[in-house]
Parts: sequence; structure tokens; C-alpha cells
Amino acid sequence: MLDLNSQTAGFDRENNALVIIDQTRLPNEEVLLSLKTREEIFDAVKTLKLRGAPCIGVCAAIAMAVLSNDSTAQTEEAFIKEFEDNAAYLISSRPTAVNLSWAVNEMKKTLFSCKGQSLDNIKKALCDKASEILENDISTCKAIGEYGAKLLEKTDAILTHCNAGRLACIKYGTALSPVYVAKEQGHDIKVYADETRPLLQGARLTAYELTKAGVDTTVVCDNMSSYIMKNSLVGAVLVGADRIAKNGDTANKIGTSSLAIVARHYGIPFYVCAPMSTFDKNTDNGGGIVIEMRDEAEISEMWYEKRMTPEKAKALNPAFDVTDASLITAFITDKGVFKPEQIKDII
Amino acid sequence: MLDLNSQTAGFDRENNALVIIDQTRLPNEEVLLSLKTREEIFDAVKTLKLRGAPCIGVCAAIAMAVLSNDSTAQTEEAFIKEFEDNAAYLISSRPTAVNLSWAVNEMKKTLFSCKGQSLDNIKKALCDKASEILENDISTCKAIGEYGAKLLEKTDAILTHCNAGRLACIKYGTALSPVYVAKEQGHDIKVYADETRPLLQGARLTAYELTKAGVDTTVVCDNMSSYIMKNSLVGAVLVGADRIAKNGDTANKIGTSSLAIVARHYGIPFYVCAPMSTFDKNTDNGGGIVIEMRDEAEISEMWYEKRMTPEKAKALNPAFDVTDASLITAFITDKGVFKPEQIKDII
Repeated sequence: MLDLNSQTAGFDRENNALVIIDQTRLPNEEVLLSLKTREEIFDAVKTLKLRGAPCIGVCAAIAMAVLSNDSTAQTEEAFIKEFEDNAAYLISSRPTAVNLSWAVNEMKKTLFSCKGQSLDNIKKALCDKASEILENDISTCKAIGEYGAKLLEKTDAILTHCNAGRLACIKYGTALSPVYVAKEQGHDIKVYADETRPLLQGARLTAYELTKAGVDTTVVCDNMSSYIMKNSLVGAVLVGADRIAKNGDTANKIGTSSLAIVARHYGIPFYVCAPMSTFDKNTDNGGGIVIEMRDEAEISEMWYEKRMTPEKAKALNPAFDVTDASLITAFITDKGVFKPEQIKDII
Repeated sequence: MLDLNSQTAGFDRENNALVIIDQTRLPNEEVLLSLKTREEIFDAVKTLKLRGAPCIGVCAAIAMAVLSNDSTAQTEEAFIKEFEDNAAYLISSRPTAVNLSWAVNEMKKTLFSCKGQSLDNIKKALCDKASEILENDISTCKAIGEYGAKLLEKTDAILTHCNAGRLACIKYGTALSPVYVAKEQGHDIKVYADETRPLLQGARLTAYELTKAGVDTTVVCDNMSSYIMKNSLVGAVLVGADRIAKNGDTANKIGTSSLAIVARHYGIPFYVCAPMSTFDKNTDNGGGIVIEMRDEAEISEMWYEKRMTPEKAKALNPAFDVTDASLITAFITDKGVFKPEQIKDII
């Protein structure tokens, strides 16, 4: 069905289902879900059983294929109407997820390019397109890993932040891909994973996928980076990216820019790993990136179970920060390794 | 009994008791404990109801006075034997706490200086000495606050880490003392408090005592310092210190040195607030300071209630880190404000 050791989601064509691992149950329980109805899929995205922009995109494509396959429409017109209805419904599960609407639109393009063919043919074309989107994600991530593994040939250990691994994608991931590819090549790299407050994606997800893959993993608190770098426990810092501006300024999970500053202080290389699609032609620099503010309760309550701060204390909860391009040693992408000053010419 | 708004522990001479606020119940419950027996006092230190090196020292002195006062010994010899026995018992509650044995020894010196006097006189001398130690702690902290408040005359907001407030001392505290003194002088300074993983002393204790005192307090995660400083939300960083070497290298709660590096990057002053007794003549530099490693479970389990990391993941839990003297703008002490390079001459 799905090789839990290496893949986050898959297309079970035999049973016409989207198969995912329920990320809300990690790291304590490994629960595989086989999703067939649009309500099940909507719920999985809505409740974060499924997360990570690339992963959501791929799963949306598979979902559109699964739902189209199950269609009982007898005419092309009815089929298209049903498709459009499902598309709108799925997109509404997380309206701000760019990859979700991108993937659904890719599927729509395939559908319209097949107009006039038999419904069976259209269904097959949609399934093939979903598989292609999935394979593309895997090969993009693997390419990042190959470029990264070469850079890390002499590195024994790295520090990473949040989860930019296969759980955010399908396989390999972005920041963790160099570690997985190096491992395939026989080079074991030890990983220090920031727990990443407030939602602990590092402690829960990064540590889960790395240990599952047999990588030597040590979870640390976000405030330990200076201790780790001062004591030369790592040779590089690798992080993912949510958006990269034209000048190389990079938005990523809150805490990333402190890591970059500390790495610079100790002379340790700081790499941002991301597919070319993360570079944003329409944003000149970090000043143009709006930072999402999240619920104070993520900080003031622990897992919404126990209040950890006094009632009168406020909390500030920016979800991201912007790392200045000048602090980034290089970008490791699916098209090669680039210095910040090269970005403008490449995108 | 005890003014909860400003004081952490006190000597209730009328009822011959050590009065403390139970810090394990904060911030959700304010429970005052009136401790009279040596078992109650031992338990309070052992189970961290009472914490913070200066606070433990003062409370140990009060405890020795309370126990001596209750003595039914009829001869000086029996009285001294009982005193020595209580002293050894209390010190065993936290053998590494230097302030605890220091305070007990101060009390012992008083006892021996009164030898030959009536037991009633000796008891009174011990009570007076305990009160003096308590008052000295308060005035030392207040002096730090006065020097600090002057430095912060034009500062609207600061960032602090862990708890270096009155809950670690008796009143005023060290890093928070300038905020309290400025407030007394009519200048309100807003405080951003790092939650301070893994034990959340910032979220629980610093936020408690500051909001209790009417200070505008915002709790942030430890990974938000770069966001806060980049956006000019604070004008200075103030932290406490566990030990300061002769060259100015400073050991303090893990995360302090990252803050200092980030502050330097953004050109924001970084102050270490500590009484002169924190300077260690016997340590040349930070290399000579051994860092305590604590239980992995503090990171891998959330409040020992829920496992947050996969079983196979390790965790690294250094309790402190060392901030290089070169990153410290100045030390705010009870004897004045000093640059790191002045330390050698002063101690």
C-alpha cells in the first residue's frame, strides 16, 4: 500500500484511494488512512492529518483523480460539472494553500485537454496526471537531495528547524533530502532537530521521519543552537523555505533567522533547501512578505490542555520570520546550488 | 503575612515560621505556605516549591532561625548539637546549592560569635541575622535595579530570558529589578519574556510576577528573538547570571548566548544583571565552567505527561550556556555598571 519508511502519501490505484499517514497521531501512533470520499479528503486537509504545502498539492491531485474515477456521470457535461464541484469543495478546505489550488488547476487543464474523448479515457488521463504530479514532487525533492549530499560530503552532523522533510512533501523532503540521499549513498549524517515551538513540528514530525529512516536523531530545544554550534556538534544548518524573494530574503518557520545569525557568528554554513517553485518573482525583498500571526493559545496553553502563562500575560505568535539573504550561504534547489546574488538572474 | 505582590518569601517572626509562595503551583494557583518543621522546609527545597539561588540562601537562614527558636535544648552544648544537626539536614536537601550552605554557615558564625550568652540571646541573634540576610538580599537587588533603571531611562521595552526576577530572590530580583525600580519611579517598561524551554520558567514565573506587579508582559517562544529585535520591539535585552568568570564570560540559562549573538547582530544592548557575589575569582574564563546536563525527558515528554518525540530519538538537554564577554554590553551590579574589561580589576 504505502511504504511508511519513505513515503508520506500515495495513490492506491488498485483500490482507487488516496492513502496517507495521519500526521496528527505522530509520533506516538502510525495510522494509515485510505481516503475515498470527498468528505474524508476534505476533513483530512482541514484537520491537518495532511500538511506541508507540496504534500497537500500532490494529495489534492490524487483526490481529484480518485473522485473523477468514481464518477457515475454518463455525459461529459455532467462529468465536468461534478469535477468543478469537487474542485471548489476541496479548495475550500484550506483556501490559502497555494499548492492545493495549483494542483487542482493542473488536473483541470488535463481534463480540458481531453475534451471529446471517452469518459474512460478522461478518467485514465486524470489518474496518470495525478501519478505524474506525485512523481514530479519526488524527483524534484530527490534532485535537491543530490545537490545537497554533494555539499555535505565531509559533514558528519547538521542542525535543522521545523519539518522540511518527507512529511511535508511525498518522499525525501527539502531540507532533509540531502540527509536521505547521503544515506542512500552510504554516508550517515547525524541530525540535531530543533523541537520548534510552539507546535513542535521538529520534535514530533522531523524526529519521527528521521528515526523511522534509521537516521541518528537528537531533539533539542530552539534555544540550544548557540551551545550546539559553539561546541562544533554540527557542520552545517539546513532549513526549508516558505517563500524566497527575488533578492534571496527567505521566509520560513519562526526561529529560522536566529539560527542563521548564530550560524554566521560561528562561521557555520547556513543552507536553504527549496524547489525552484518557492522563488517568488513578484516579491523584491523580505519587506514585501507579510508574516502570519497565529493564535496566542498555541503559546499560553500547552497543547490546549493546560494553561502555562498567567491570564493577564499576552503572547505574540508570529508563524514565520524573514532571514536576510546576506546570512544565507547558498540555496540548494532542484536545479543546482546558488548564491543569494545569483537568484535574480535565475528566476 | 507576606505581600504577594512584591515578595517571594519572608520571616514571620510572630508565628516563628518561614513563609513562602509555592512556586510549583504558579502561575495558576497562589498558595502560601507557612513552614515550621525541618521536614516541611526540607521538602519545600527538595521539590522546588522554593527555587532560585539567592532565594534558597535567604530561606535557609530563616529556616535555621525558626528551628533554633523552637529548640527545647537546655544547655548551650545541646543547642549547638541540635543546630549542627539541622544544618546538615537542610544542606542535604540540595547539596550543590552554594547559597544554601553559604547562608547556613553565616548563621553558624553568628551562633559561635554569641557563645557564652543566654540561649534566649543566641536565639534572638540568630533571628536578627536571618532578617539581616533577607534585608541584604533585598537591598542588593534594589541597587541593581537603580543602576539599571538609569540605563533604561529612554527604553520602552526589554526582552528577558528565564526567571531572574523576585521569584528567584526575595524582592526586585536581578534582571527584572530595573523594570520594578523604573516602575516605582513612574517609568513603565514593557517586557517580552522568553518562555524558556524546557521548563518554561519564563512563561510560568516571569510572566506571573510581572503581571502581578502590573507590568505589561508578552510571552514569546525562545525562537522569536530575531523577529522581536528586527522589528525593534525592544530596546535592550536583560538577563541574569549563574556564574561570571574573571574575563566576563557568563554562564546563564540555556539560550542566553543565542540572545546575545542576535542582539549584537541588530545592535541592541545586552545587559547581564547580577550581584557582585556572582563573579567567580577562581574561574579565568568560560572554558572553566562545567555545563550541567539534565534529564532528556524534560524535552521528550511534555510535563512528564505526554511523549512528544519518538522513542528512538535522543534529546540533548544542557541547562546552561556560556555567553562570551565580547557580546555583553555591560554588567549591571549592586556596585555599579561595568564593562566586561573592567571585571578583572573589580573582583
